[in-house]
Amino acid sequence: MSSKDSRILSGMRPTGKLHLGHLVGALDNWVRLQEDNQCFFMVADWHALMSEYECPSVVSESTFDNLIDWLAAGIDPAKSIIFIQSEVKEHLDLYMLFSCLTPLGWLERCPTYKEQLRQLSDRNVKTYGFLGYPVLQAADILLYKANKVPVGEDQLPHLELTREIARRVNGMYKKDIFPDPQALLTESPRLLGLDNRKMSKSFNNSVNLSDTADSVRKKIQNMITDPKRIKLGDPGHPKECNVFSYYKVFLRQREKEAFTWCTDAQKGCIECKTILAEALIEKISLHQEKRKKWTKDKAGLEQIIKDGRLRASQFAGQTLKELKQAMGIL
Amino acid sequence: MSSKDSRILSGMRPTGKLHLGHLVGALDNWVRLQEDNQCFFMVADWHALMSEYECPSVVSESTFDNLIDWLAAGIDPAKSIIFIQSEVKEHLDLYMLFSCLTPLGWLERCPTYKEQLRQLSDRNVKTYGFLGYPVLQAADILLYKANKVPVGEDQLPHLELTREIARRVNGMYKKDIFPDPQALLTESPRLLGLDNRKMSKSFNNSVNLSDTADSVRKKIQNMITDPKRIKLGDPGHPKECNVFSYYKVFLRQREKEAFTWCTDAQKGCIECKTILAEALIEKISLHQEKRKKWTKDKAGLEQIIKDGRLRASQFAGQTLKELKQAMGIL
Repeated sequence: MSSKDSRILSGMRPTGKLHLGHLVGALDNWVRLQEDNQCFFMVADWHALMSEYECPSVVSESTFDNLIDWLAAGIDPAKSIIFIQSEVKEHLDLYMLFSCLTPLGWLERCPTYKEQLRQLSDRNVKTYGFLGYPVLQAADILLYKANKVPVGEDQLPHLELTREIARRVNGMYKKDIFPDPQALLTESPRLLGLDNRKMSKSFNNSVNLSDTADSVRKKIQNMITDPKRIKLGDPGHPKECNVFSYYKVFLRQREKEAFTWCTDAQKGCIECKTILAEALIEKISLHQEKRKKWTKDKAGLEQIIKDGRLRASQFAGQTLKELKQAMGIL
Repeated sequence: MSSKDSRILSGMRPTGKLHLGHLVGALDNWVRLQEDNQCFFMVADWHALMSEYECPSVVSESTFDNLIDWLAAGIDPAKSIIFIQSEVKEHLDLYMLFSCLTPLGWLERCPTYKEQLRQLSDRNVKTYGFLGYPVLQAADILLYKANKVPVGEDQLPHLELTREIARRVNGMYKKDIFPDPQALLTESPRLLGLDNRKMSKSFNNSVNLSDTADSVRKKIQNMITDPKRIKLGDPGHPKECNVFSYYKVFLRQREKEAFTWCTDAQKGCIECKTILAEALIEKISLHQEKRKKWTKDKAGLEQIIKDGRLRASQFAGQTLKELKQAMGIL
């Protein structure tokens, strides 16, 4: 183990272009975490295929595109190990070993399973692979002996299952191989979509990191604001306004001011949205500027992916060796 | 495709020492098949782990031991590709891809699933991995585009599932990648165990290829014969006698003679068994003699395994590449 505080594994499913929610909900957090922890950041392409198998080309297209977003957001290959899940064969090896000893009932009863089936109702995921989603996730985490996993509250049952598998393996083969990974509940703001629903590609309600300035302006102007403020002179209710929640994330320095101009009816919603849109455009263009370095430098990107694969494989190989030794199958 | 008649995939789960049933039920058949077909013979260690995960060391112990039996039985590495499943990473890759698109219901409804749970009732196989047994089997077969699979009648539903998966993949990605593998119903004799039940390690009712002459003599003398023949002078009923069924397999040249000495009460069961035992001892010692070459030549054995891995990987890699290309994820 390195001298760093904790070992962390986190991943993202490459299922399309990234949006602002990914940036503030995950990537900004990863950038902070990599300062004091040994971080493994994984493009979870096997996980993506579980839902995208009917049109899988989006997975490989998004893999590189998302990686470029990660780098542009500040994930630093000198600090973190960045890799593609399917390129480190130990993920499936450990997944298979875990599959052999994971009772079917643990998965069928997992509270998030039915919730996920519902969330992905536009995909046919009543498949064998999708039922094993948390087994693969356990393999991802435990392969690197991660003791901290940044998760949202909705994913806590999955992490509980990882701990159950870890304990079962440690007990069965009489060796403390795997840690008891703990949730790192992130304080990241949860950004709602433009229509006040969860921000999601499938709802088409997100501001994407690849959007043009014009597109951002249009999207922001179409945001739903306070429905009780009908005329310009009516005082607004910022706490019930999604635009204001974006100020809290992206324009904190003007949060108080905006609260006042809204409740005092000093500015109208269009002007308020224009200010937000310009701030987002600035943030996004800065991000797009940083992306350019990597879209131009394909060889550099490939080198990062290769280095990540080698470093991840080395660690993963050690863990697998230790497990196989304990099992007597080396 | 080679100029040989068909491409065949078959495997054996390394879960212990091999016995006479393996020899006459599978290996002798493989030896015949390798003459006119391109054969892939696989040590199915992932499959073995599905039932042996609680005491998995038997899997690695049996892997080499069984391979030596294969070679001693006449499986020829110059004619056949002999390999260990877990050493060819494409098996799990294809298993994962198939898992993503195999409806859970296909597996839950598979008629052999409940039967297998019953047969392995001494093992805890109500696991996630075991439910996916036929998905992995489909990957094993289709990875080599095998168009013929030697199976017993009890395995026909598994093969049907392989065909369903093949058709689903070909249809979904609009390319005829996988063949429609056909069952090669083997005419091999089905050898019962010494106690007239199915020959199985867990019933401890088998004559093993590693047994000593003394052990064979003892085991054969303890075989159940015709229960209606009480006194030496009573005529026997060979068709109801398991010892006679062994004559039909191992002493065909004396089958008629034995039928007569039994029905005419010319010889007693002890003498009849002694003749059988000596014939088996001769067969087994010949086998053990051939084993010696390989137990002494560890480097030679490893070379065969390595060659097999490389040849299998090359084929498997091509198939996977073709599939990924059709999926748009290469």
